[in-house]
Amino acid sequence: MSRTARLPGGITTPKGYSAAGVAAGVKRSGRPDLAVVLSDREASAAGVFTTNLVKAAPVLLGIDAVRTRADRIRGILTVSGSANALTGPEGIADNRAILTAAESEFELPAGSLLPACTGVIGTRLPVDRVVRALPSLRGALAIGPEGGEPAAHAILTTDTRAKQVAVRVRLHDGTIVRVGGMAKGSGMIAPKMAPPHATTLAFLTTDARASPKALEGILAREVEGSFNMITVDGDMSTNDTVYLLANGAAGGEPADRDPAFAEAVGTVLGSLARQVARDGEGATKLLSVHVTGARTLREARAAARAVAGSMLVKAAVFGADPNVGRIAAALGYSGARLDPDRLDVLLERPRGAVPLIEHGRPSRGVENGAAIRLRDVLKQLEEVELTVRLHEGHAGATAWGCDLSYAYVQINAAYRT
Amino acid sequence: MSRTARLPGGITTPKGYSAAGVAAGVKRSGRPDLAVVLSDREASAAGVFTTNLVKAAPVLLGIDAVRTRADRIRGILTVSGSANALTGPEGIADNRAILTAAESEFELPAGSLLPACTGVIGTRLPVDRVVRALPSLRGALAIGPEGGEPAAHAILTTDTRAKQVAVRVRLHDGTIVRVGGMAKGSGMIAPKMAPPHATTLAFLTTDARASPKALEGILAREVEGSFNMITVDGDMSTNDTVYLLANGAAGGEPADRDPAFAEAVGTVLGSLARQVARDGEGATKLLSVHVTGARTLREARAAARAVAGSMLVKAAVFGADPNVGRIAAALGYSGARLDPDRLDVLLERPRGAVPLIEHGRPSRGVENGAAIRLRDVLKQLEEVELTVRLHEGHAGATAWGCDLSYAYVQINAAYRT
Repeated sequence: MSRTARLPGGITTPKGYSAAGVAAGVKRSGRPDLAVVLSDREASAAGVFTTNLVKAAPVLLGIDAVRTRADRIRGILTVSGSANALTGPEGIADNRAILTAAESEFELPAGSLLPACTGVIGTRLPVDRVVRALPSLRGALAIGPEGGEPAAHAILTTDTRAKQVAVRVRLHDGTIVRVGGMAKGSGMIAPKMAPPHATTLAFLTTDARASPKALEGILAREVEGSFNMITVDGDMSTNDTVYLLANGAAGGEPADRDPAFAEAVGTVLGSLARQVARDGEGATKLLSVHVTGARTLREARAAARAVAGSMLVKAAVFGADPNVGRIAAALGYSGARLDPDRLDVLLERPRGAVPLIEHGRPSRGVENGAAIRLRDVLKQLEEVELTVRLHEGHAGATAWGCDLSYAYVQINAAYRT
Repeated sequence: MSRTARLPGGITTPKGYSAAGVAAGVKRSGRPDLAVVLSDREASAAGVFTTNLVKAAPVLLGIDAVRTRADRIRGILTVSGSANALTGPEGIADNRAILTAAESEFELPAGSLLPACTGVIGTRLPVDRVVRALPSLRGALAIGPEGGEPAAHAILTTDTRAKQVAVRVRLHDGTIVRVGGMAKGSGMIAPKMAPPHATTLAFLTTDARASPKALEGILAREVEGSFNMITVDGDMSTNDTVYLLANGAAGGEPADRDPAFAEAVGTVLGSLARQVARDGEGATKLLSVHVTGARTLREARAAARAVAGSMLVKAAVFGADPNVGRIAAALGYSGARLDPDRLDVLLERPRGAVPLIEHGRPSRGVENGAAIRLRDVLKQLEEVELTVRLHEGHAGATAWGCDLSYAYVQINAAYRT
């Protein structure tokens, strides 16, 4: 039984956090593009970052911050609309300038804000516009949903909805702590994040007490089965970043080794990762792929990711086409060991699973006439949930993706226009 | 200077080969779907096949044939419209049945025909319909383009055009030999073929004399830089197959170690691979990516493939959007070593290259106003040819892909309907 219970809200649900989001004019559309999350006291912090060799300026600065000042972080400042990547030393200077101005505006010590950016690669940050918007950002600071909601919207780019979640969990010593989070991510989504190394952005806050080192271990472990298992387009970003802040406002003993705390962090990351996949660029359906019976965890993850990331599977899901051969082909090139004649694939449904492939053969249900009924089933599903049984061992994993629609092409053929 | 000269035609250009293509009713559309290529004498044969663990029945039979009877092959029988994959032992029996019937129809020894199939995964071959069409296939057999053209059309699926090429080369001993080829491939294209292990199909014929072992070596080596460097959608097929037949009809010494012969085979494979990429599902433009200055050949290939296969780069090419950051991001996750601050990317044009990224920064030409002119340039290009300079070493490679259009989604959202 899970010890984790859902709460309303997101990053401002844990005690001691406030947030705000405003329009600074980075986005030509005039939509909100500047967000801040603040802790009312020093927080421990951990981060995982993109492993792309081309790292954005805020990623380089964020890596440095969690390496050198992880015990005294006060918040996160995010700009959306510009990735501040491929901007060289000037990009670093630009990002430092807005962090310094924000620390001054919020009366925080130098180096206490973590940076993040998302948007077009290769354009400079409009430093003046961001700095001019800082007083209004400060004026908008609020606790609870009044702060969390605008912040969750201001970090978005091509996303169609904000992504938030919060949970509550009772620790070993009886303390009740909260973990909240917000995320963005719609395209260039195939994160592979590692501590200090992971454009999805996800920020988690908690009022638990924890050391930076423990936070990093928990975050690195929990990100593997959540954000590192989503794929929208197979393109790993220059800006992927997940931050976790713990300010200890709930009191109690350190949660460093409390499995309930790690589980709560995992629940928040899992929910945000699914929300990101569901809102993939142009997506009409969430695609969840559970792999069981793999020889190793590594192979289970590879198999699940291959199916969730296959362009042909994604296009078939969009078209509600039960083209099960594409699932088998993706498994066959995934790198996971399998015997094609023992492979089973099921479509999960509220009223029971429908077999798609049984013992390596398409099920009767997907052949000819029956395929038409299956198509109707697929059309009605908001989430297409597949279970793959490899029968090679006991390892399992789940990957999340989305379908490939005309809108994906439209969004990405003219993203900058 | 290349010793290889172009000739008209394809697989029937070399001496001693005939071919035919007819409609057997495998495709519901009524389009041609049964093809044969025959040699008038025993030929040496080599094959490379998909490394997907889910291998179609004709792939399993083809692997067996080139392993056991590579010195006495008489031809290739191809069915399009059904992949004969995910069909278990019955699929093997079906394919054997049509091969046996064809060998009888063409009065050939048992086991002398190589099989290939392409089409929907998970449907059984309509054996009766194929067998009933064999007499008309025999009646249509012809040398020269009258045989080669219909065969090149009958192996297609979602392709929009036939893919053929032929060359002539003078060997060491003065003998003139010819190498011809045809290919199909439009979707599920990310081949990774290895001897006996590679849905692109490509068949090469030559009237040179060569041993099966030498052919396999040449084919395995030359496929690495040609078919294994194209990507349409990143999905590796269950059916990828390249066959090379050498019947010695040109006379002369064995060409086993003649570099001119290997070069001619490489030229034919390279041309067919480019034709396959150019005709990728829904493609409006060929995308060629040359990487230079990589540390190793492996890294050069990985970097070129990452850019050519990036969904975001492909969508930007479709939209003629000079979104150069996506190129840098793809290089950054490719696995090739690079220093982001030394990266150069150029757009090749007949009138000289246009810099897109210089020393890791977007060129002035792609910023703001100038991007609009670059967009006009991109719109007019039928082939978008990029050169990437990594400045890490001396290895280079080229990958071919195509843009990602609405038509790709349309084709694959409803392939079976």
